[in-house]
Amino acid sequence: MKKGAFITIEGCEGVGKSTQTAMLKNYFESINRDALFLREPGGTDISEKIRSVILDTSNVGMSGICEALLYSAARAQLIEEVIAPALAAGRIIVCDRFTDSTFAYQGCARNLGEDVITRLNDIACCGISPDITIFLDLEPEAAFKRKGGADTGDRLECAGIEFHRRVYEGYLKCAKAYPSRFRRVDASSDAEVIHREIIELLKAAGVV
Amino acid sequence: MKKGAFITIEGCEGVGKSTQTAMLKNYFESINRDALFLREPGGTDISEKIRSVILDTSNVGMSGICEALLYSAARAQLIEEVIAPALAAGRIIVCDRFTDSTFAYQGCARNLGEDVITRLNDIACCGISPDITIFLDLEPEAAFKRKGGADTGDRLECAGIEFHRRVYEGYLKCAKAYPSRFRRVDASSDAEVIHREIIELLKAAGVV
Repeated sequence: MKKGAFITIEGCEGVGKSTQTAMLKNYFESINRDALFLREPGGTDISEKIRSVILDTSNVGMSGICEALLYSAARAQLIEEVIAPALAAGRIIVCDRFTDSTFAYQGCARNLGEDVITRLNDIACCGISPDITIFLDLEPEAAFKRKGGADTGDRLECAGIEFHRRVYEGYLKCAKAYPSRFRRVDASSDAEVIHREIIELLKAAGVV
Repeated sequence: MKKGAFITIEGCEGVGKSTQTAMLKNYFESINRDALFLREPGGTDISEKIRSVILDTSNVGMSGICEALLYSAARAQLIEEVIAPALAAGRIIVCDRFTDSTFAYQGCARNLGEDVITRLNDIACCGISPDITIFLDLEPEAAFKRKGGADTGDRLECAGIEFHRRVYEGYLKCAKAYPSRFRRVDASSDAEVIHREIIELLKAAGVV
């Protein structure tokens, strides 16, 4: 029996994380391999309660550091209650977004400071870090162009692009900081091509 | 006009923090001096929502680090929304519990690690720290004895005493780490005597 592994899926908006996560789930089912799929923030009763505070649209005045601390609190609970026991039991975990999202979004795009978020991630994770991070690499301009059409007007306006450009640059910094776990996948290809590349990566890493 | 100041009130359970805070509020009113009284966790809409997650009795499985991150999130919001603007406007702030409580309770009594909590406090406070911390110093055994009677059975049992002993020792560590802002007040005296001592301390510090 293969040993467990902690896999995270990362990347900017619109690069296909949900699609690839769903395809990966189907793949694990097709080979009868147990795998636990999680999303952040959430995954436990307490983390979902924290998620609802984060996403409550009436909380418009939430400070950036408060938001980052709430993401970290939800993550700490998910780690203690779900991730750590599952890893101890040798299970495979696939998590849609994890610490690198907090680094790229809060640390870089929202300018809270890369060092602050790195320290915060360290505190929340209690020594647990992904074994493999699949970085779906597509520049925000290309992701937005691919979506195209009417959508371009609302979320993809000028300020949005600058924000997502900083997120993208945050991911590149993560890739540089954690070369041993980061696996870059060209996300401009077709979903099926990307999926096959991810499976090859997981096979090379001895996960499947 | 006197300048503003950030005053925190700290100490173990049952040492008289609420009594002294109420007496201090009356005093500021009696001298027509504007002062903002806060309690933690809470003080903003968002912080109160976080407080309700912390205090939700159904969240029995909350991890210690999740709890500490939630306290920090509520604090970060209180600082950005209330404390920092009030200090900038030269107001006096009196806060019932602050970072030293997190250090003593989560860091020491719950054994999350003093270093972890110190780093977390630094992240949440964005450079703001109390000018004066009034430490109501009474050993937990004495506080429990003063309460006495029927109460002894429920909260003051053996394990409880050990926990509160670690809280007390945590406060002594804070007093040693931050001698310039810590003011120790003997909390075994009568409430009126303690109150007068606090006023003398604030006068000596140039606050009133």
